Amino acid sequence: MTSVSIIGGSGYGGGELARLLSAHPHLELKQVTSRSHLGEYIYQVHPNLRKRTQLKFCDPAALELVDILFLALPHGQAQNNIEQYAKLAPKIIDLSADFRLRDLALYEKWYGDSHAAPEWLGKFVYGLPELHRTELTSANYASGVGCNATASNLALLPLVKAELIELSAPVLIEIKVGSSESGSEGNTGSHHAARANVIRTFSAFGHRHTAEVIQEMGLKEVSLTLTAVDLVRGVLATAHAKVKQGITTKDLWKAYRAAAIENPFVRVVKEQRGIYRVPEPKILAGSNYADLGFELDESNGHVVSICAIDNLMKGAAGSAVQCMNLMMGWEETSGLEFSGLHPI
Amino acid sequence: MTSVSIIGGSGYGGGELARLLSAHPHLELKQVTSRSHLGEYIYQVHPNLRKRTQLKFCDPAALELVDILFLALPHGQAQNNIEQYAKLAPKIIDLSADFRLRDLALYEKWYGDSHAAPEWLGKFVYGLPELHRTELTSANYASGVGCNATASNLALLPLVKAELIELSAPVLIEIKVGSSESGSEGNTGSHHAARANVIRTFSAFGHRHTAEVIQEMGLKEVSLTLTAVDLVRGVLATAHAKVKQGITTKDLWKAYRAAAIENPFVRVVKEQRGIYRVPEPKILAGSNYADLGFELDESNGHVVSICAIDNLMKGAAGSAVQCMNLMMGWEETSGLEFSGLHPI
Amino acid sequence: MTSVSIIGGSGYGGGELARLLSAHPHLELKQVTSRSHLGEYIYQVHPNLRKRTQLKFCDPAALELVDILFLALPHGQAQNNIEQYAKLAPKIIDLSADFRLRDLALYEKWYGDSHAAPEWLGKFVYGLPELHRTELTSANYASGVGCNATASNLALLPLVKAELIELSAPVLIEIKVGSSESGSEGNTGSHHAARANVIRTFSAFGHRHTAEVIQEMGLKEVSLTLTAVDLVRGVLATAHAKVKQGITTKDLWKAYRAAAIENPFVRVVKEQRGIYRVPEPKILAGSNYADLGFELDESNGHVVSICAIDNLMKGAAGSAVQCMNLMMGWEETSGLEFSGLHPI
Amino acid sequence: MTSVSIIGGSGYGGGELARLLSAHPHLELKQVTSRSHLGEYIYQVHPNLRKRTQLKFCDPAALELVDILFLALPHGQAQNNIEQYAKLAPKIIDLSADFRLRDLALYEKWYGDSHAAPEWLGKFVYGLPELHRTELTSANYASGVGCNATASNLALLPLVKAELIELSAPVLIEIKVGSSESGSEGNTGSHHAARANVIRTFSAFGHRHTAEVIQEMGLKEVSLTLTAVDLVRGVLATAHAKVKQGITTKDLWKAYRAAAIENPFVRVVKEQRGIYRVPEPKILAGSNYADLGFELDESNGHVVSICAIDNLMKGAAGSAVQCMNLMMGWEETSGLEFSGLHPI
Repeated sequence: MTSVSIIGGSGYGGGELARLLSAHPHLELKQVTSRSHLGEYIYQVHPNLRKRTQLKFCDPAALELVDILFLALPHGQAQNNIEQYAKLAPKIIDLSADFRLRDLALYEKWYGDSHAAPEWLGKFVYGLPELHRTELTSANYASGVGCNATASNLALLPLVKAELIELSAPVLIEIKVGSSESGSEGNTGSHHAARANVIRTFSAFGHRHTAEVIQEMGLKEVSLTLTAVDLVRGVLATAHAKVKQGITTKDLWKAYRAAAIENPFVRVVKEQRGIYRVPEPKILAGSNYADLGFELDESNGHVVSICAIDNLMKGAAGSAVQCMNLMMGWEETSGLEFSGLHPI
Repeated sequence: MTSVSIIGGSGYGGGELARLLSAHPHLELKQVTSRSHLGEYIYQVHPNLRKRTQLKFCDPAALELVDILFLALPHGQAQNNIEQYAKLAPKIIDLSADFRLRDLALYEKWYGDSHAAPEWLGKFVYGLPELHRTELTSANYASGVGCNATASNLALLPLVKAELIELSAPVLIEIKVGSSESGSEGNTGSHHAARANVIRTFSAFGHRHTAEVIQEMGLKEVSLTLTAVDLVRGVLATAHAKVKQGITTKDLWKAYRAAAIENPFVRVVKEQRGIYRVPEPKILAGSNYADLGFELDESNGHVVSICAIDNLMKGAAGSAVQCMNLMMGWEETSGLEFSGLHPI
Repeated sequence: MTSVSIIGGSGYGGGELARLLSAHPHLELKQVTSRSHLGEYIYQVHPNLRKRTQLKFCDPAALELVDILFLALPHGQAQNNIEQYAKLAPKIIDLSADFRLRDLALYEKWYGDSHAAPEWLGKFVYGLPELHRTELTSANYASGVGCNATASNLALLPLVKAELIELSAPVLIEIKVGSSESGSEGNTGSHHAARANVIRTFSAFGHRHTAEVIQEMGLKEVSLTLTAVDLVRGVLATAHAKVKQGITTKDLWKAYRAAAIENPFVRVVKEQRGIYRVPEPKILAGSNYADLGFELDESNGHVVSICAIDNLMKGAAGSAVQCMNLMMGWEETSGLEFSGLHPI
Repeated sequence: MTSVSIIGGSGYGGGELARLLSAHPHLELKQVTSRSHLGEYIYQVHPNLRKRTQLKFCDPAALELVDILFLALPHGQAQNNIEQYAKLAPKIIDLSADFRLRDLALYEKWYGDSHAAPEWLGKFVYGLPELHRTELTSANYASGVGCNATASNLALLPLVKAELIELSAPVLIEIKVGSSESGSEGNTGSHHAARANVIRTFSAFGHRHTAEVIQEMGLKEVSLTLTAVDLVRGVLATAHAKVKQGITTKDLWKAYRAAAIENPFVRVVKEQRGIYRVPEPKILAGSNYADLGFELDESNGHVVSICAIDNLMKGAAGSAVQCMNLMMGWEETSGLEFSGLHPI
């Protein structure tokens, strides 16, 4: 069995990793760290893991050598200790924003801060398999992905890959998100009485995840608007772009179908009947799927491309495990077989 | 006391009218019709009215003459009987879509049907007081407003009125809506187990309410995208437009403040601290306010203008009562004083 | 105009008082204190009050003399300063638990603590008008009520008053509550991602509000079980008791109808058709109504009595304002006319 | 591979079976019937199954012979065709209420109707493995279980098995349920705008599932009270009983721990710290666990026993698959390994 540990296991990303890794067919989950919950059973913090693991949270200082190390720390921490972590394991996958951007200037612009380990930026492969599958198969280090960036990048992927949209026209992406995006700690605004029932546009533009869309899609004029809604898990990105002259719905179908064929976790949802005609995040809770849909207004070239994901899965831990599968030469879908639920 | 009746009182719009009119200081609510609930107490269908009114739903055929008549029928019905209704009352306010559009061609394009009483289109004033206050003071007939159109029009009002945006650039409006928009009857998609937790983009473009934005704002390239979220009452419109060269945040502040001063139910919400920094529909449930906010990216002229309303109030019954107040020469806010709740 | 101030205005109870008192026909709201939000506009914390009041939160030390003083402090604080508050106003209404219990021993047993001003316990009238209307008309001091205790007491009121139940048989009350019960500060368990979708029985028995049921209903064997559910405002108490031999459904109807006739805010909800057949808290949000219903199993005498209220209104601020109306000789319903909404 | 088919696959129970059976390691899912969705892909109705099965709903008349047949029809239908179904497969598991009760008189009393195949009542084993594991290993026919009955029976199991409670004292069970209990068709009361935010006690006593508690627990005085809350999947049963003289918390711990050791899907949740101290259904969505907890008031012998389950899993399809595993001699947990999610 391959050994794996998680640094930072008490947050939602760390908990989702613990769920996936403890059930993964090729792995033994050895250690999970948490300073704030030191000594507690993991299942006391992540109650879905009761009867699934008897591990307790351990001290980061007690970490042993492993084959694979996952980092699930708050943004800004991994870059300070990456040298030390690299001594613990030959392969590292980091869920934070620390190693997502290749370009130091881009990082400094969007994060408003200098980077503690800029020489490591180039060593990490951006951890979205749908964009970097080949590089990941030979990578030792994979970054995490921003959940909103992932929904945006996958909404745009078929359009950009098949060169269907005008890159000069601004691309506007409206994103609706659930409350698990704000982390497990919560804040006054996430108190249930304040957060329930909301439709709250908390970022009109300038969200940090925009940088990942710029980097990965090669777009210059792209804007993300984020609105919190009443849901725990899930992101829906609704991207508005302009197709090139003459592009038809048929061309789009071809591009979207190709994405679904090439990528085991991409599906196209575009039905004429029934309740579930378009991508919806609710049925994806716990699954690693990205559901894509689109509508083209042929009268003016306005294309609306939609992507639904579970922010903690395809938008975080799920893509990270998928990266690991590729890096280790395992079946890409190993340990990610859960289909999601209906109804939910 | 002025007498008033409601035709079509068992739906959500009719119920909201019954709530407002039965508590209005200048009115006596005489009759409320419902074919499907004939003979039942109104409070059996609208349980919030128990101990507030002892009226029973009556047959439309039994309607008596009144001073004011409200129509709250499903779209397409009022136009067939408008001549008959006009004999019952000198003043009529219709909540449906039948008399919102001035231009028959616009109606036929967006509703895909001919109109049964085209000669009446010109007799109705579009029932949004923030746009037609003066005309309403001398009107006998006021139309209803589309809830999504109202959130859109009010989001755009300060920008268009002060001529701050490029009318040639496309305007894109992303709208998030609660479940009461789909009416009181429901459908398979509105079953709680299917509708709870959704983020469902059910109209990428082409929604009928677009016609009201075109008509009222003088915009040609405008697109509404609608997404259902988990909420009962409320609409949030997030409009994306391009300001003219040189327009600054200060100019926008001026325009939005002016709207709030001119209109008793318009408020500007743009805070630097606290939980409630932007307009949110949840705190508006039952109130007639329209809360406006905005953000301007001065680097590229991208303005995001936000409007939150309660779809059953400012987006339907509330605006209708406000119209009545103007038509009758009463205080514009009469019977609409409820402030909304916090928390909710 | 009568002058009124609120000590402790930033919590949910204080905010609800500010909403009610600023719109009350006989009152001028003079001051509202908050140490944590000193100098902020009240509407920045309670956004529903924007355009309704221009007051800012002031320092408790700056309080001026008024006719009526409302205390909306966390439990345990009012008792330490009651002498000082009594110098500020001839009439005081306290929302906290400090002066609800007449018997010092009962207080010490359920609150596990000594009382800082035991000599004041006898000066306060328990602030539920449905139980103490006459005493309140001549009272200078009224206590608050526990929201869960209020739902329980009103569920039992018709049964106890008409002497229909066996007082020797244990009474079991199952209570379901919304998240606003836990206050505006929130805690890790009230974080939306943790609190949404819950059915969480957080108190099997021994809840402090039990003491108020014991005191007011004269019951010895009574147990309250509390379960948190996904809702912001609202409490439903479902009380299980045993009726005396021979008591029929007809007897119960008589007792419940009497309660509705005697009390302007009590309603009986027991319908054979439609959606809303039983009391439900959701339609009571913002209203001061207590809706009562019941079912009797005549085969074994098991009676289920149900009471729905808005915990921030009838269960807190609403009853407090109702007490004030009685204490001042005003119409009991003054300022409490909001009917509640449907749908919501 | 063993072959399996589902009769009645478009409802929630049938959909959950399709999810479980199509991913089960020992099975090939051959046919799924639906009259109303004939010819549609299963994933058009159950969108979580897209990319998981390419089966289309088929006509019941086209059913082929299989090793195992699951019936997921509305109550009352299976009993009319059981002879015919028995010819299709040697082993049948029925999710409906048709074959749950051994005693025809009990059936007629609670279902108010005669039974179409009374001679089959004795052939079916009641399909809750925690109660009938041994019989199931040699059974050909297993009944379904009522979701509310299952939460009730499992809440009582440790108490009854260890003979800790007074069987003469009445047992009262308060049950809170999500909206998926009402089936996939919905009704006017399940319309989202009506059903969201509810706390609705829709059955004070007399619910049909009571019969299963009487039969399985040997209780005579037992009452189920059901309250709908805002959740899709999940049931929480809170049972109130009286322990025998002298029984202590320690005795209860022993009984509950024994249940968790004997049953792979039973867990005891009783924590002193953290957010998740008691059983909660939300984290069980999609899992087959039954989480149990309890509190004993040693001063009066009042025990509160709590059981949380997913009504579509342990309360329906999950228990049915668990029965199948036992009937086929497979690992009891096969195909039921999903742990559930946190947060959700």
